[in-house]
Amino acid sequence: MKSLKIIKDLRQITGAGILDCQKALQEANNDLIKAEEILRKKGQKIVDKKLDREAKEGVIGSYVHANNKIGVLIELLCETDFVARNKEFKELAHDLAMQVAAANPQWIKPIDVPSETLKKEKEIIKEGLPKDKPTQTIEKITEGKLQKFYSQFCLEEQMFIKDDKLMIKDLIQKKIVKLGENIQIKRFIRFEI
Amino acid sequence: MKSLKIIKDLRQITGAGILDCQKALQEANNDLIKAEEILRKKGQKIVDKKLDREAKEGVIGSYVHANNKIGVLIELLCETDFVARNKEFKELAHDLAMQVAAANPQWIKPIDVPSETLKKEKEIIKEGLPKDKPTQTIEKITEGKLQKFYSQFCLEEQMFIKDDKLMIKDLIQKKIVKLGENIQIKRFIRFEI
Repeated sequence: MKSLKIIKDLRQITGAGILDCQKALQEANNDLIKAEEILRKKGQKIVDKKLDREAKEGVIGSYVHANNKIGVLIELLCETDFVARNKEFKELAHDLAMQVAAANPQWIKPIDVPSETLKKEKEIIKEGLPKDKPTQTIEKITEGKLQKFYSQFCLEEQMFIKDDKLMIKDLIQKKIVKLGENIQIKRFIRFEI
Repeated sequence: MKSLKIIKDLRQITGAGILDCQKALQEANNDLIKAEEILRKKGQKIVDKKLDREAKEGVIGSYVHANNKIGVLIELLCETDFVARNKEFKELAHDLAMQVAAANPQWIKPIDVPSETLKKEKEIIKEGLPKDKPTQTIEKITEGKLQKFYSQFCLEEQMFIKDDKLMIKDLIQKKIVKLGENIQIKRFIRFEI
């Protein structure tokens, strides 16, 4: 019974299949944290492979807030119409639309931030930095502040509104591993009155 | 009973209230077509007055086609939150979103067509014109072809998909008369995979 519980826990954390969870636990001598690490590495390999593959199928996810004052559309792509019709994939699209409604990101990834905006943000960060610290510390603080900016305005860097320990890009990676296809957010739009 | 039926018919055609229909029928000696004309003129006056008024409240209407491959958001404005919360107003927003999904307009009004696009369209029309007709005929044909272009690509000039005798701008005018507030389409967006 204990082994069933640990498999269940591992599945919940990683989203991996039962067989993969069993194998990872065997390899990790039933150490949950080690098994999670094994699966994460394996998942990352799968994700890296998938990310090169063309995603042309998909769904339009939508969400309108209860007050009808905020509405969102999001285009979520995958590789095949089979996955596009999958309930979990559609739920992901809906969750992402809800995320956009609630957290109001401006771009999908850090790379999408216009260079002019990024330049200005870096200047603002620079102005606020302490002047009596070593260069290395300054660099670390700058990096941290920039990441904070990304996590506020880039959808994939935001924490998931339904699970504040999960970043949106990790949520998507989990689904890539689970559904076995490349998944990409192509675009989103948010209307607010 | 006959007078009840004719009032009902008139209401259905014009969307006007019972009292207004009764008055118009009295004025028109129970002639349905005349009464409709009276109400239309009266409605136009109401619309003209309303159109100057600021519309800052409203709703976001949305529609996602059953295959999840087409999605639309539309921002529909009115004057007060009271009308924004009205069921019929919300239905109008939803109908307009459905219209955009089905008929794929590019702009809201003819005035929104970029001058470059309009110039090109006029050149295309000019090339297709007969050369042996009097100027007046040429002008009429040009006008007709331009209107056809607008009715294809401008939302307000399109025929309503749920009633092919009703233009979208007339549908909106009807609702302005019925709900007693200025109603404006502010923007829409359509995603298609």
